[in-house]
Parts: sequence; structure tokens; C-alpha cells
Amino acid sequence: MLARELAEPYALVDLDTDALEAARILAADRLPGLVVTDQDGSPYAILPASQVVRFVIPEYVREDPSLARVLSERAADEIVRRLAGNKVRDLLPDKPHQLPVLNGDDTVIELAAAMARMRSPLVAVLEDGRITGVVTAARLLEFGCGAA
Amino acid sequence: MLARELAEPYALVDLDTDALEAARILAADRLPGLVVTDQDGSPYAILPASQVVRFVIPEYVREDPSLARVLSERAADEIVRRLAGNKVRDLLPDKPHQLPVLNGDDTVIELAAAMARMRSPLVAVLEDGRITGVVTAARLLEFGCGAA
Repeated sequence: MLARELAEPYALVDLDTDALEAARILAADRLPGLVVTDQDGSPYAILPASQVVRFVIPEYVREDPSLARVLSERAADEIVRRLAGNKVRDLLPDKPHQLPVLNGDDTVIELAAAMARMRSPLVAVLEDGRITGVVTAARLLEFGCGAA
Repeated sequence: MLARELAEPYALVDLDTDALEAARILAADRLPGLVVTDQDGSPYAILPASQVVRFVIPEYVREDPSLARVLSERAADEIVRRLAGNKVRDLLPDKPHQLPVLNGDDTVIELAAAMARMRSPLVAVLEDGRITGVVTAARLLEFGCGAA
């Protein structure tokens, strides 16, 4: 079994995608994260949904649960508006989550080994330098449990 | 808005759930991870799907991509069988991913602050000491984007 046989379509954004648009994709498809490419379509990083939440919650609120308690719903709306006007590149942490990248003709074992080594929830599959799909850990387990 | 209004049902396993059963749940529901409780139903940890993959790929394969390349499909089947006879507790890393826990009457801002602080993909919502649901980062963004 080759990596390309397990790969599935997945939502891609690039570094210049609007941050609010990225949040809407995560929300609409209930995704745990997005694959981020650079401007020429090369794989760049993973943007976890929790990182977007982290971006919209100011540090002084994150670190002070009693302050979070007294913030009103209206404040919540205003916090979400922090996304507007930002790009995906602004949401990424200083050390973004590395995205393992394999070629379509790599084997499933190589794919699993890369996922395990990098503790990554997904692996991007490349053909001719472009991402043609993604294999999630759950997809890999589906293959494994089917084989067992 | 209170935490309980955003909470949704989510797959729970406990420390003694069969490891292969846990992998099958992850695969069938295409989940990025499972909520693990201890034997009395109290929240314990998050088990990421990638951690299950890590468990089934022996360290000598993880760290040697050239070895991964030569392993046959048959080896893959055998590796997956490593799950059989193990429990969820065996899959968890030494320092499991902490599971943020909030009460149903905590506010959505408190929930978002806990998620952001702990960089967690989900938060468990408790009522009377039992998990009644889970809020994922994507669910929270859905609420936020709807409000914006």
C-alpha cells in the first residue's frame, strides 16, 4: 500500500489566507486543524484549531481565570473580531507545528513512521511538489484495523 | 452563553478499554483523539490518534526511515496486532495530554481561556462530576464566527 492510496482531500489555506476565513473553515468542517502552504503551494505547517482560539483570547485573560469569568458575552464578540484583518501567518505560533510530508509512492509504513516520529495528527502527501491529499492518524488506523 | 450549551456528545473510553477497540473508535468516527476517563468515570486525559500510531510503530522503525521503507505490508499487519491485548492505559504516554475540565455553568469565555492556556483541542464539560459532553476548538470557533 502506498501513501497516495490512503490520501484524502483536505482543507488547505496559505499564509496569506484571511484569519477569519480560516476560522470559518475550521468551524464549518469541524476540523482539528488546517494544512498551511506557503504562497507557491508548498507545504508549510499545521495550524491547530486550538491555536486560533489561543490567538483570539488575550494573554491576560488566558492567565487569569477570574477575569475570564467576569468578561461578558459582548466582550466575547469583540475578542472574535480580533481575527478580522489578520492573516493565517499572524495566527501561527513562533515555532509552527511541523507538517510531515511524504511522496505519493512512499509506503504506508514510512508514512506511519513519520507520523509517529513527529507526533503529528496528519501527513501531507505530495505529487510533483504539490499537496494532493492528507492522511490523518484516524485514516491510518482505519487502514490498520481493517488489515488486522 | 454557558459551557453546557456548547457541549456535544463525544466518544469516551476508560483506562481499561481494549486498545484495539479504542483504535477502531478513532478510525470509525475519524476522530483526532479520544477522551479517557478513569474507572469511576472521572476525566483523566486525552489520547491523540497520533499517539496510538506511535504505539504501534516500534521505536527502531520510527527512527530509521530506510528501515520503514523495506518493511513489507505483512509487517504492517503484525505491527497493528501490537494493539491486541493492550489497554488504553498502555497507549498513553508517560505524561498524558492534560484534559481541561469545566463545569456546565462556566462561561464560554472561561472555556476558551482554559483551552487557550492548555493548548488543548478540546475541553470536557462536567455536571455533578460526570462528563456530559465535550467542546472542541472547532465548535468554539463556530460559536465565535456566528457571533462576529
